[in-house]
This record gives sequence, C-alpha cells and structure tokens, in this order.
Amino acid sequence: MDMNEQRLKDEQYMRKALVEAGEAFRKGEIPIGAVVVCGDRIIARAHNMTETLCDVTAHAEMQAITSAADMLGGKYLTGCTLYVTVEPCPMCAGALGWAQVPRIVYGASDAKRGYKKYAPHALHPKAVVVEGVLEEECAQLMKDFFKGKR
Amino acid sequence: MDMNEQRLKDEQYMRKALVEAGEAFRKGEIPIGAVVVCGDRIIARAHNMTETLCDVTAHAEMQAITSAADMLGGKYLTGCTLYVTVEPCPMCAGALGWAQVPRIVYGASDAKRGYKKYAPHALHPKAVVVEGVLEEECAQLMKDFFKGKR
Repeated sequence: MDMNEQRLKDEQYMRKALVEAGEAFRKGEIPIGAVVVCGDRIIARAHNMTETLCDVTAHAEMQAITSAADMLGGKYLTGCTLYVTVEPCPMCAGALGWAQVPRIVYGASDAKRGYKKYAPHALHPKAVVVEGVLEEECAQLMKDFFKGKR
Repeated sequence: MDMNEQRLKDEQYMRKALVEAGEAFRKGEIPIGAVVVCGDRIIARAHNMTETLCDVTAHAEMQAITSAADMLGGKYLTGCTLYVTVEPCPMCAGALGWAQVPRIVYGASDAKRGYKKYAPHALHPKAVVVEGVLEEECAQLMKDFFKGKR
C-alpha cells in the first residue's frame, strides 16, 4: 500500500471514529470517538461515556480497547490500529501501551491534556503514531461542544 | 491527627489493600490490591483482574476508582484516599488525576512501570503522595508471584 492509499484508509476509519464522536456529542458527552481496526475490519467502536457511566475511566479509547480484546479473545491488540478523534490522555496512552497497540492514529491534538506532554513514553516503545488525520473536523466538534457549554 | 496516628491509619488501610493483593495472587493474577477510603470508611476494594477479565485496563486502581465513584454517585473522588500495594502505572495515575484523588498512598515502588518515571505529572497537581507504607510486605508478594512464574 503506498502512502496515499494509507492516508485514504486512515481517513476512512477516522470518519467512523467521528461518527462515534458525534454520538457522544448528542448524549452531552465530550465528543471523542474511537474505532479499533484489525485486518481491515472494524472490531470495536466506542465513544466517551464518562458522564453517562459516571466514571472518569470511560474514555473512548479505554472502552474500545476493552471491547476489542473481548472480540479477539486476548488482551493484547498487537495486530490492531486504534483510531481516535483526539490525542489520547496519559491514562489512555498507558492503556494503549499495556495492550501493545502498534499503531495509533489520531485527529486533533490536545495541548492541555494530551499524553505527548504529560506521558510521552506511555505508549509501547515501538508504536507508530500518525497525527492530524481529519484534524479540523475532529477539533471542530470539540469546539462546538465547549461553545455550547459556555 | 499527629504523624504517628496517620502512619498507623495508613498501615491499617494498606493491610486491607494487601488482603486484596493476596486474593489476586490466589487467582494467578499479578498481586496488586487497592482500597479507597472516604471519611474513615472503606468505600471500595479491588484487585488486579487483567487475566480473569482478559482486559489490560482491569488494574486494581482502575476498578477501585470505578467502584468508589459508583458508591458515591459522583465521578470525582475529591474527599478520598486511594491505597494501593504497588506504585501506580501511567494509566492508573492518569485515572487518579481525572478522578481528582487528593491523596494516594502506596507500598512498593515500581521502577520499571511506575508513573513517577513515565508520567510524573499525571496525578492531580495538588495530590499528596505517600510511599513506602508496608513496602516490604507489598514487594514480597510481588517477588513470590514472579518467582513462582519462572
């Protein structure tokens, strides 16, 4: 697969993560969505549910990891790519590290809460990270959400 | 409460976390246990369940946080102390940060996987951390577990 094909594929899956983020938005949750892809198939979809579940650990990535492991019947996601609309926080980066996810693709950066600043080595040491896929759409959803909250 | 009284109380609650860690040991899980204390009462007890649940996110602290929030009916644990037998990893430290846990007490350090090295700012900025409570007992349980695995 050449670079353009890969980018198109990444955008295609990020759109699915954006659908999840939109679902979170409609529920009054911070609009972040994630999907886990394994062998060109989506094996888990999730969105942030912290308010609904009254649980700070219910981030999109955490739920996607748990759901994907359940689907695969093993706790390591070594053949998977996780797509998430916003840069993971240290908690989620740590979970991605434990699950040995080898490729993480995210949309918008999170300068205030992102793992890059606060936990740069939390991911698996060999993990490949692709950032900025559909960045504007991912970021716009967050902006719209917080504008509505003010 | 003077310093000695506080230390005795911390040891008393760490013993409860050790009971949880022992429970994990018996199940073949890495023996780490945690309790959450609120107003001098244990409101959550948990131990590592990653193997049983086939879920890398099922660390003792994560489950204790979720359970405590459920008990309190709110997702912030601002009046609580979390006791855990081993230094939290970046994932758990991130979760403790999101939950705004103001006081964390742990037993043994974890030089390889602990948050201090990999995510030193993941906890809430005002969180107080007490380390080394019943350190030897907490560390011994881990050593016994990994010795049995070799």
